[in-house]
Amino acid sequence: MSEKVKIGLLGCGTVGSGLVKILANHPLVEITKIAVRNEQRAQEIATNLAIEQSLFTWDINDVINDPEISIVVEVMGGVEQTKQHLLDAIAAGKDIVTANKDLLALEGSELFAAANKAGRRIMYEAAVAGGIPIISTLEQSLAANKIICLQGILNGTTNYILDLMKKEGKAFDEVLKAAQDLGFAEADPTNDIDGHDAAYKVAILASIISGKQVDVNQIYREGITKISKVDINSAHKRGYEIKLLGMIFNDEDEIDARVHPVFVPQDNPLASVAMENNAILVKADAADTLTLIGKGAGSLPTASSVAGDVLMLARGNSIAPVTSESFAKIKAMDEVENSFYIRISMHDKLGVLRDLGEAMLKHKANVKFIDQYDVHGSEAHADFLIDPIKEKELKAIIKDIEAMDSIKAVESVIRVL
Amino acid sequence: MSEKVKIGLLGCGTVGSGLVKILANHPLVEITKIAVRNEQRAQEIATNLAIEQSLFTWDINDVINDPEISIVVEVMGGVEQTKQHLLDAIAAGKDIVTANKDLLALEGSELFAAANKAGRRIMYEAAVAGGIPIISTLEQSLAANKIICLQGILNGTTNYILDLMKKEGKAFDEVLKAAQDLGFAEADPTNDIDGHDAAYKVAILASIISGKQVDVNQIYREGITKISKVDINSAHKRGYEIKLLGMIFNDEDEIDARVHPVFVPQDNPLASVAMENNAILVKADAADTLTLIGKGAGSLPTASSVAGDVLMLARGNSIAPVTSESFAKIKAMDEVENSFYIRISMHDKLGVLRDLGEAMLKHKANVKFIDQYDVHGSEAHADFLIDPIKEKELKAIIKDIEAMDSIKAVESVIRVL
Repeated sequence: MSEKVKIGLLGCGTVGSGLVKILANHPLVEITKIAVRNEQRAQEIATNLAIEQSLFTWDINDVINDPEISIVVEVMGGVEQTKQHLLDAIAAGKDIVTANKDLLALEGSELFAAANKAGRRIMYEAAVAGGIPIISTLEQSLAANKIICLQGILNGTTNYILDLMKKEGKAFDEVLKAAQDLGFAEADPTNDIDGHDAAYKVAILASIISGKQVDVNQIYREGITKISKVDINSAHKRGYEIKLLGMIFNDEDEIDARVHPVFVPQDNPLASVAMENNAILVKADAADTLTLIGKGAGSLPTASSVAGDVLMLARGNSIAPVTSESFAKIKAMDEVENSFYIRISMHDKLGVLRDLGEAMLKHKANVKFIDQYDVHGSEAHADFLIDPIKEKELKAIIKDIEAMDSIKAVESVIRVL
Repeated sequence: MSEKVKIGLLGCGTVGSGLVKILANHPLVEITKIAVRNEQRAQEIATNLAIEQSLFTWDINDVINDPEISIVVEVMGGVEQTKQHLLDAIAAGKDIVTANKDLLALEGSELFAAANKAGRRIMYEAAVAGGIPIISTLEQSLAANKIICLQGILNGTTNYILDLMKKEGKAFDEVLKAAQDLGFAEADPTNDIDGHDAAYKVAILASIISGKQVDVNQIYREGITKISKVDINSAHKRGYEIKLLGMIFNDEDEIDARVHPVFVPQDNPLASVAMENNAILVKADAADTLTLIGKGAGSLPTASSVAGDVLMLARGNSIAPVTSESFAKIKAMDEVENSFYIRISMHDKLGVLRDLGEAMLKHKANVKFIDQYDVHGSEAHADFLIDPIKEKELKAIIKDIEAMDSIKAVESVIRVL
């Protein structure tokens, strides 16, 4: 038996602890050093995981400069300082495995350039959709394909909230509170519910798909805080479910990349993805449509992907990272075309339908269906769905509608897949 | 730019032609020789694909012995003779990519042993579920996991037939005929509808999961020819859909591997896989549940997986094949436990229910639901579903039921997932 490949860990929280469990007694690799914040933390973790405390250090350089360690696994989180640690590790001849999407989306360019220059490798399957092998699918299995588009449920917290709103008929705030109590949503849920987390993942995926750097700040982002019970019911009634999707449409020389809630047709496999699961649908020119569904987070599922990367490296395999230093051109959101669901509340007046019709005609928007119904007393509501138009046209329509005397408010505007 | 990696093709039918299209002008690899049956066939293909006829040969040894070729792609089909060609290619120092499930299931053991000995690699993503990256998922992404079970729609033809029987309410024979006319089923459909094709794929997957050789002849196999419209409607009404699944349950020291129709609960993602699509659900100890859905056959999807393997090899990567020469112990079907759906027709007599109840009690079978209904005149039907019992117990129950005076026939016995 040849000697085991030695692994150093930076951080040992949820994912790191999962990795320690998964790789315990592995025949090929061995975790020989774990850097954590301080001695007290080391004691806690050593006790929890029932491993020797001598494995721990609170000096990251002990891991980075250990000549026996060949793979450094970064599961500590953070961006600026963590980047510097990984640059040091690359300079010290280590290959890197990371689950840090923020770091990759914001500083991946510099890290990959350093790794390429040093002949080292960075693997990051766990950074996007936890236990789902989307990175290896794109970089290996679909390597000979042109990716036409990708649509993904990339954030488990928001999928959990939307699914429970549908199933239990509860309001957003109420479900968020329950999700926080159950540990499915964080105390400060902004990163999830506003779509930041999904946007980081879209940036990483768009970078693989385009073969270029992608600026996460150019990715249009809209969260789920405005989605109401009424929207969810309307969608369901029409044969759709509302999902927060990360989407990438790969045009010839532009990438249309964005995160926002969408009406997903019920026969799309993404529509029925329940609870905190993640899922990704890829359309490729040769492989056609491929859908992957699984756990997007959690200690063991995420650590499973980290372990897969570690074993790939330990066996001498790797995936070529993005080498281009140029940035992908992201399509301006105003130019993106979508079909829209619009819900308005209106005063009970004559001529409302005529006015609405004129606004649509003026902007050449084709109405696919309209459903007008009374809610209470003198207030009427109307739902309608319009065929694809550019975002800038949609904005103009909404402005016109809002200016009508007969209209009380535009209650919802949601894009349709 | 370094020189391209040179590829030789054995065969150029559906998959081979797809590969030629996908790899045309690829920056990394280049198909430099293609062996086909004879000169006439070469002319036809060269014209169809608009490639030079000088690429073709009708002597397989021209490909195998070409010192410039480093990867031989086998898409010619066949078992015995093809095995010998691949052994020759391995001996000549080539890595192999194959899409040939029959060959791998029947002769994989000998091929992998030869490849290991020679330090060559055999990759075969396309052999199971065409465009779906199930092999790399099992061997790489889930490398650190223990696979608990795998359930797969591994044959597109049978899924197409079952889906159309459900959607159009037609009988098996009628849908099979339509499928043949559309090219979704072959003129001799035995290989698909009797489950042979799925069993080969189960053998390959069980071999990866167990790390041992698997004898395809030990895999229990039942096709879809006996599935009726009534069965499909009954299943749907109860919250299930009938699918032909390949299943592998990974026990401690035995593998429960089989192919047969199953009632799949509608909330299982496999239940809604439509048309000729394939899908695989894997439960693993760390990654939890992962489902992959995509095209299981077809020129470009299958060639896409072949191309993925070719590029992996060309980049110097590979997956460790099964190295154990010992055979996995396959659980005896009599000992396998399943829940069952049973449908009987009976004469309109007193005491039938009591008799049925006694038969169940005698074999300690717990009835989950029973539904008795008249079909026409003096004939009554009953559907019932029983909790998991061993196959041998089920056989005894069926024998007892068939012996009852009041029973006309046991119309259907279908396992429930």
